[in-house]
Parts: sequence; structure tokens; C-alpha cells
Amino acid sequence: MENFEYQAGTKVLFGKDQISKLPEIVKKYGSKILLCYGGGSIKRIGIYDDINHLLEGCELYELANIAPNPKIESVEAGVKICREHNIDVILAATGSEYDAGAVISNTATNEKLGYDSEYVRPKVSILNPEYTYSVSAKQTAAGSIDIISHLLEQYFAPHNTYMADQLLTASLRTAIHYAPVAVKEPENYEARGQLMWLSSLACNGILSTGCQYGGWSCHGIEHELSAFYDVTHGIGLAIITPRWMRYILSKNPATASRFAQYGIDVFGISAELDTNEIADKAIDATENFFMTLGSPMSLSELGIGTEHFDEMAEHAVEANWLSYAYVPLDKNDVKEILNMCI
Amino acid sequence: MENFEYQAGTKVLFGKDQISKLPEIVKKYGSKILLCYGGGSIKRIGIYDDINHLLEGCELYELANIAPNPKIESVEAGVKICREHNIDVILAATGSEYDAGAVISNTATNEKLGYDSEYVRPKVSILNPEYTYSVSAKQTAAGSIDIISHLLEQYFAPHNTYMADQLLTASLRTAIHYAPVAVKEPENYEARGQLMWLSSLACNGILSTGCQYGGWSCHGIEHELSAFYDVTHGIGLAIITPRWMRYILSKNPATASRFAQYGIDVFGISAELDTNEIADKAIDATENFFMTLGSPMSLSELGIGTEHFDEMAEHAVEANWLSYAYVPLDKNDVKEILNMCI
Repeated sequence: MENFEYQAGTKVLFGKDQISKLPEIVKKYGSKILLCYGGGSIKRIGIYDDINHLLEGCELYELANIAPNPKIESVEAGVKICREHNIDVILAATGSEYDAGAVISNTATNEKLGYDSEYVRPKVSILNPEYTYSVSAKQTAAGSIDIISHLLEQYFAPHNTYMADQLLTASLRTAIHYAPVAVKEPENYEARGQLMWLSSLACNGILSTGCQYGGWSCHGIEHELSAFYDVTHGIGLAIITPRWMRYILSKNPATASRFAQYGIDVFGISAELDTNEIADKAIDATENFFMTLGSPMSLSELGIGTEHFDEMAEHAVEANWLSYAYVPLDKNDVKEILNMCI
Repeated sequence: MENFEYQAGTKVLFGKDQISKLPEIVKKYGSKILLCYGGGSIKRIGIYDDINHLLEGCELYELANIAPNPKIESVEAGVKICREHNIDVILAATGSEYDAGAVISNTATNEKLGYDSEYVRPKVSILNPEYTYSVSAKQTAAGSIDIISHLLEQYFAPHNTYMADQLLTASLRTAIHYAPVAVKEPENYEARGQLMWLSSLACNGILSTGCQYGGWSCHGIEHELSAFYDVTHGIGLAIITPRWMRYILSKNPATASRFAQYGIDVFGISAELDTNEIADKAIDATENFFMTLGSPMSLSELGIGTEHFDEMAEHAVEANWLSYAYVPLDKNDVKEILNMCI
């Protein structure tokens, strides 16, 4: 068990009608508010009107059209508004709700880079599963796959504790239980609620305290796909993850026992089989699961070819500490994994 | 899934040598410090000297001899010191490190009552597993049983989410894995560390967000034992828990399926058996586990008779919302459970 520091002070208000507490929350911090949002879904589903009504009397500014892979230009525009108007509160209707991370893309340089700071951790998060009812089946699948990937990146770490293994397994089982429900029944409150909350816990570090972290391999590779081709992050992960699994298992056959444990605990594969067989079945089960959620499973389906693989592989390793991953990856490893994704 | 509010902003510094950060932490809040501790183990194992050395230059006051079941007199004495000396920081070398709860006994009225407030949640917790190396086998068993009971009280709630069931199961498996190791090998860092951190998570609410809470049955009954007889809390829980399980299973046979699930997931009992048989085996396994940790398993062994059972049962139900528990309990139920403990 490694030494660690942990603090996640965000106040979470979870459930129906919690938005009604917005005025009293905002009042603590000030009355000049910057509302940040994406393509306008908050207008279609009514959150925008609710917020405007609840915050009558506040000075409300807006930063709209934040892309699904948020761009550096949006950050710069937001900074400008904050400075010009002495903004007190950033009210983000999109974003990471219970962690201190951000990922920003720069299309000019083909970079998508992660960033961590306590200054970007929300003071308060209002989470209403009903707000996700309108999320399409495709985006629900992509979001669920992202949750699963966050859990897998922690599960396949250089060194885990027993408790982290147990908690991550518990969380993977929950994601796999509810993702297909949410895809099929978009207004299933329990499925939406459990996935929404799991999404927070999968990303805020609480499930893997005391473990030895390494680079997040699939995220590292996927960020290159998004940077070069603006791929939906979860779809990129669905394509990369099973190939990464097969590649590292073949590069380091000693990982078979960990893949087997994952297969037994998460997918209920029989422990009676041979370890290598269980490991293979576990990877197949992962791939099949993403496929049945409706995700594309190859880069060709997205119209992506091999032309930038060299550049992407080089950058992925540098920017994401992949040489410290569960199975360390160099440029050639990443290129081979990308080739398997075609 | 129920609406919930969740916030646990304590900064956790976990591991070896984290105590060296004490001066920089304390400096943020002030220089008048009240050090609270128990019977003096912090002197024997060196923490007391470390603190005095690290906080040279601060005004250090002391509140010593806080009992394992802390008494209202200690609280009153502490309040007096804080008021007289304008204390900035309470440095508690004993207590609940990552939650907002406290339990205080009043021997004059035979009351042991719980209390929750954000004002008692620590700003910072320094957790070093090495500090628990000197905890005796008996107290290690009692502490482990308390952790397990915190998890069971959440597991057997009026309504749980799927995720909470998975996370609580994961945590129960961890406790059951490491408690015997810590009892047998007091200086096993991994076992001490995992139990120490699990103790925090089992009590701060993160594992059962979104569940419908009810009274904590075994804690409610045990607090009466501690209030009347100053019983070691975890030992009281070891005695009560299996009896409570048998009693509610017999009162409400529909609970068999939940006990069976617990038996299969936590103790690995075969799912092939009949549900009622698994349920019985699960309760036996719980009792045997506490016994093998070395806990006394009856009130007679502690020299406790039936003379106060009426009064205890009446108070337990009132003070602990036992009529809203997983299986609601009235005064007669509690008295019967206590009789089973003799």
C-alpha cells in the first residue's frame, strides 16, 4: 500500500429537484455568474430556462458552444469573460463534476492534454439523473464505455491493493449491469442514476487510493485519436481497449492471471478453466460487451487510416507516461496497437 | 435510488512519515493547540514526543485520559480549555478520522448517544498504519468487528442500490481478508493499512450513497451495553450481531434471500444450496469468524446478566430509530435479542 494524499471536498447534491437549491448555493459565492454549456441541449431539455428563472437578479454571462472534446479557444474565451466582468461563479452545465481534472484539445497542434488542479474541482455539483434522459443511445454507450475504461485503467495498474481490486471489481460489475439498461431504456431512473454517480466515483480517485499509479494506456492512446480526428472519446476507447488488452497479454504473458481474475469476477467466467483460456475469454467478453452497446469497433468504420500513426504513437508515449503503465509501452507498441484497431 | 447530499472534505494524508507535514498543516489554522488523547499509548509509541517536537513554538494544551467509550465529562473539560485559551486547533490522537460523527457516553444517565455535525468533521487526518502496530490482538479484533458491523448495518438497510451492494460486499471481503492477518501479525503494514483506510470508508457514507437508511440495529443495541457496562464496543457487536441476524431471519423469513446473497458473495458459500440453508450458513460463518478473531461470544463471559434488559431495550428503540431498521424492531424484539446473547 502506497502513501497517498486524498481530498475531494465537492458537495454533491444528487437526485430529482436538487436544482432548486441553486440560488442558496450561488449566493455564498457571489452574484456574477458565467454559465458554460455545449451545443444547446440544456435549452432543449429545460435546464437553461430553469437556471435563468432560479438566478433572477444575478448578473448572468454565457459561454456557449463548448465542444464535446473542449477546445483551448473556449478556455481562452472563458478567461476573458471572467476577467472583464469579475465573475464570482462558473456554472458549468457540462464537465467533470467530482474531480480535479480537465482535458483540453488544441486543434492547431493536434494535442489533447490532461490537466489536474484543485482549482478546477467544483465546490458544489448538482446531479439529476433525469437530465441525462435525452442523451442518445450512442452517447450513452460512449459514456458508459468511458466509465468502464476509467475503472479498467485503475484495475490494470502497476501495483494495486486488495481493497482497490475489490472496489474496482464492484464498480465494473455495476457499470456492466446498468449500461445496457440505460441504452435500451433512456428514462430508467435507476440505471441513469447509478451510471451518473458511478461516473463520479470512477474518476475521483476514491476507488484506488494507496495503489501505485502508472500511465493510463488506453486514455493516452485515445487522446491522440480525439486530437487528430475529433473522435467521440468513449468510442475511441471501445476500439482501443480490447486491442490493448490482447497486445499486452501477448507482450507479457504473466498478465494472464490478472486478466483471468478480471474475467471471473466481472464477467462470471468459470474459474475451472485454464488461466490462459479465461484471460482470452475475458478480453472477448469486454469486446463483445462494447459491441452489444452499439459502439463501432474499428477505426476503418470511422474513416480513419494509418497516415498519422507514427506521430500519434510518439506523442502518446511522451504526453501520457506510457512507459510507466501496467505493461510499459513505447512508440512501437502504441503503433502496433493502433494498427490492430484498423 | 434516493436523493442524497454528500460532502466529505477531510484532507487525508495516509502512510509512513506523513506526520512530518503537521507543522505546515497546523500553521494554516493557528498556533494554540489542544492535544486530545486517551490512556497514554501515544506516549509509549512515540507519537506524543513527535508531536511536541514538530510543534515547538506553538502553545500546546492537553486533554488526556479520554476513555475508549468517551465520556461527557471529557467533552465538558475540552470545551472549557477551548474557551479559556482561544484554541485554534484540536489535535485528536484518537477518534473518527473521516466522518462527521461522534458517540458520547453519560454514565450518570446510562446513555451512549450518537451525534452528527459538519463541525466535528476533521479538516485534515494523518493516518499512519504503523501507529496501530501496538494495538493488542483483542482490540484489533474488536476494531475489525466494528468495521464489519458498520458495513453490515449499511448492507442490511431498508433499501439498497445495486452499486452499494457491490461496494459493501467488496469492503466486507477486504475486512474479512485482513482482520485475521492483523490479529496474527501486528506489524503487517499491508493488513494494518488496509484496515485503517477501510475503517474510514466504512464510516463516512461513501459506500451507501443513494440508499434508504434506517436505524443501525446492532449499534443501537450495543450502545446500551456500553452505556450500562462500559463494554468494548466491537466485542458487544460480535456478541449481538449473529443473534440479531438469527432473530430477524426468523421474524421475517423473506430476508433469507438477502442473507444468502451475503453468504455467497462474502463467504463464498456455494450458490447451489437451498436459499434457507445458505442463509443459516452465512450467519454461522459470521459468528465463527468473530470467534476465530478471539472475541468473547456471550454476555455471560463478560459477567453481564439480564437485570437491565427492560430499560436497555426501551432506550435502544427510542434513541436509535430501530422501528425504521431493515427489519423494524420494537422493545420486545430487542429484549429477545439480548436474551439470546446471554
